[in-house]
Amino acid sequence: MNDKLKLAQKPAEDALRLHPFYRGKIEVSVKCRVKSLQDFAVWYSPGVAAPCKAISLDKKLVYEYTNKGNFVAVVSDGSRVLGLGDIGPEAALPVMEGKALLFKYLGGVDAFPICVDTKAPDKFVEFVKMLQPSFGGINLEDIASPKCFYILERLRAECNIPVWHDDQQGTATVVLAGLINALRYVRKELKDVKIAVIGAGAANVCITNLIIAAGADPGNICVVDSRGILNRQRAAVLKGQNPQKYQLALKTNAQNRQGGIAEAMQGSDVVIALSQPGPGVIKPEWIKKMAPDPICFFCANPTPEMWPWEAKEAGAAIVATGRSDFSNQINNSICFPGIFRGVLDVQATAITDEMCLAAAYTIAAVGAEGGIYPEQLLPTMDNPDVFIRQAVSVGLKAMELGVARLSCTKEELEAKAAEAITRAQRTTQLLMEEGIILPAPY
Amino acid sequence: MNDKLKLAQKPAEDALRLHPFYRGKIEVSVKCRVKSLQDFAVWYSPGVAAPCKAISLDKKLVYEYTNKGNFVAVVSDGSRVLGLGDIGPEAALPVMEGKALLFKYLGGVDAFPICVDTKAPDKFVEFVKMLQPSFGGINLEDIASPKCFYILERLRAECNIPVWHDDQQGTATVVLAGLINALRYVRKELKDVKIAVIGAGAANVCITNLIIAAGADPGNICVVDSRGILNRQRAAVLKGQNPQKYQLALKTNAQNRQGGIAEAMQGSDVVIALSQPGPGVIKPEWIKKMAPDPICFFCANPTPEMWPWEAKEAGAAIVATGRSDFSNQINNSICFPGIFRGVLDVQATAITDEMCLAAAYTIAAVGAEGGIYPEQLLPTMDNPDVFIRQAVSVGLKAMELGVARLSCTKEELEAKAAEAITRAQRTTQLLMEEGIILPAPY
Repeated sequence: MNDKLKLAQKPAEDALRLHPFYRGKIEVSVKCRVKSLQDFAVWYSPGVAAPCKAISLDKKLVYEYTNKGNFVAVVSDGSRVLGLGDIGPEAALPVMEGKALLFKYLGGVDAFPICVDTKAPDKFVEFVKMLQPSFGGINLEDIASPKCFYILERLRAECNIPVWHDDQQGTATVVLAGLINALRYVRKELKDVKIAVIGAGAANVCITNLIIAAGADPGNICVVDSRGILNRQRAAVLKGQNPQKYQLALKTNAQNRQGGIAEAMQGSDVVIALSQPGPGVIKPEWIKKMAPDPICFFCANPTPEMWPWEAKEAGAAIVATGRSDFSNQINNSICFPGIFRGVLDVQATAITDEMCLAAAYTIAAVGAEGGIYPEQLLPTMDNPDVFIRQAVSVGLKAMELGVARLSCTKEELEAKAAEAITRAQRTTQLLMEEGIILPAPY
Repeated sequence: MNDKLKLAQKPAEDALRLHPFYRGKIEVSVKCRVKSLQDFAVWYSPGVAAPCKAISLDKKLVYEYTNKGNFVAVVSDGSRVLGLGDIGPEAALPVMEGKALLFKYLGGVDAFPICVDTKAPDKFVEFVKMLQPSFGGINLEDIASPKCFYILERLRAECNIPVWHDDQQGTATVVLAGLINALRYVRKELKDVKIAVIGAGAANVCITNLIIAAGADPGNICVVDSRGILNRQRAAVLKGQNPQKYQLALKTNAQNRQGGIAEAMQGSDVVIALSQPGPGVIKPEWIKKMAPDPICFFCANPTPEMWPWEAKEAGAAIVATGRSDFSNQINNSICFPGIFRGVLDVQATAITDEMCLAAAYTIAAVGAEGGIYPEQLLPTMDNPDVFIRQAVSVGLKAMELGVARLSCTKEELEAKAAEAITRAQRTTQLLMEEGIILPAPY
């Protein structure tokens, strides 16, 4: 046990040692030929005036003449970073850079971290709207609830490029994918199972809605926030405060249960916790009172609500966490690079719930190939196939829904995604081989 | 003559062919080691929480733990792009990407293009202020005059990172460097010469002030805007409209000349034009009426006020333009990568006029080594030395002025700059050799 705890602390120790060594996780690099001064006459003054003029006459040419179509802004105000709370935009930058690293390495997406110095939702919305001309999409990140709902809703309505909040849709997509395979393993059906959802922040509200969209019975779900289970009695109070929780209080919990986490988990088949860093938030005895073969997703960052080995001892059939150093990582990094790859490759104007469902089914399908193992429900990030196949299914879904500006065949989407991802990984490999990216010091 | 015109059109033709081939000039790449999934546990969840916490306790650690200290935002509203006018933020993106390319290739600076969807100066200022947490500096670009003065002034006063408007300070720095060497060649002294400044936009206002700071006699300078020479009579009208021109109307033109370009140029030793795209804006007969050995800087983009070969025929001793495909390019690309390199390497909080002067003297000194040639006043961009030496002189000047957060020796500054620039050029070379950056199609 001590060994496991020690191992769990290693990433933090390494991070404090390696962050100052590399001083950043991404940089800008040259994408076009530069052989001599003559090239600058083409890329900059005077040649560049010609594509500028062309775009001023036909705005959509910006997708042909620049990298806009592959630029994604990773935007945060630092108001709810990981499980650390409101640590501010500077302290959020390591996460946003890490996100950009994953976007590039796993999805071939040129994401750039932008940490915004405002806490006011309307100023944040204005900021992102002004950011649009340079970017093909917006990834919102680590914004406190409930303002994140307002921000996302306004930006989705008012922007002409797709806007996604990874802590809502991304997390929901990967939780659903994991749940699909976990249920396959224990041979239960989504429509039948009882689900306890612990925490009612941005992620869990979106997760609950997405699993309902995928076929779960709303009445079988109990959502617990810091004051207890959402139910009819609480609905009246929630109505004015938090429209998202109000809606959930009306449609979930058909039995109208009262109480807290223990009461919500009792007899349930599944517990999905994204509440607060543990361990100790969820107790072993509560798992013992779940239905047979309980499925436990303990996804608080950086430390799960309960250590996985404790959950297993208490009888969990399947345990998943948010951490990449444990088995069964439930982390949006398995979906956002692939989803954005598909979105950018068809120049989609939106990322709808249907596109998230398509991605979740694809992730689950890739994970189930060759059998489902309780310690590995989902494919891992070192499998490029999962990103390529998501890009294809998301791109196709966007075309089907009429939100794609480009039209491509399945084969074209596959080729585009494979090329972008291979390029990113090959470049990184090459820079390491040549010593431009230095080996880590020990 | 026809051949020369044809040659002058080639960059535009190549640009229209090559921009859609490369689809962008910069991309994001990975800066840190990625060997296996374990690395993601360090760069992203859970490990990343540790550096985030550390920064939240001590904000300046963001410079150690992220790439903030090497990120520069290239920000434009597209309201005055090259000589093309207000073509909007999308159409400005090819220029801003080109700028980011030069920043990286010549200065090792990770610049990112941000084209902002607003025309309102106050909203623009708010936007840039909100952008600060991710960046080590701000490069403003292609913003219409006179609002660019207001924007720069407010941002310099209200930001905690250095803000620079390349069309003002950058252009002024390189014009001064060129002028220093041109005067050396014709054996005249800056303090004695008469100078006609054609155009009174952002660049020329700043140029006039910087050459005065360098020792020119304000009374010997005539500035011409679209209504004619600035003089005492016009001062009253200008007072409320344009404070910058008003100041110039008071301090320049001791003879109180009247008239337009022809009258300003008559008898002058130097003409510096940054007015509107030519040819034909300036007439050969006006050059014939200048003092002996006239120095002509015709720097409108993309086409100079007069073709250089016409100016030579009319008697110009030295001709310079803004174009990289002609000799004597007077373009800020010879200064901004080096200046920002120095600024970032000492974490300067401002870029002062003194730092611009230091850069100008350094550029001129590098250009004069081995003799001054009338067709090559300044070093060209393929000489990395000019950027390294500017970084050193600017960094040292920042320390002397007390605007540097870090303190370094000359040798350390030299080593930092050389490493950053070599890394960028070596990476580009490598990506071309390995076919990741494809050869241009013919």
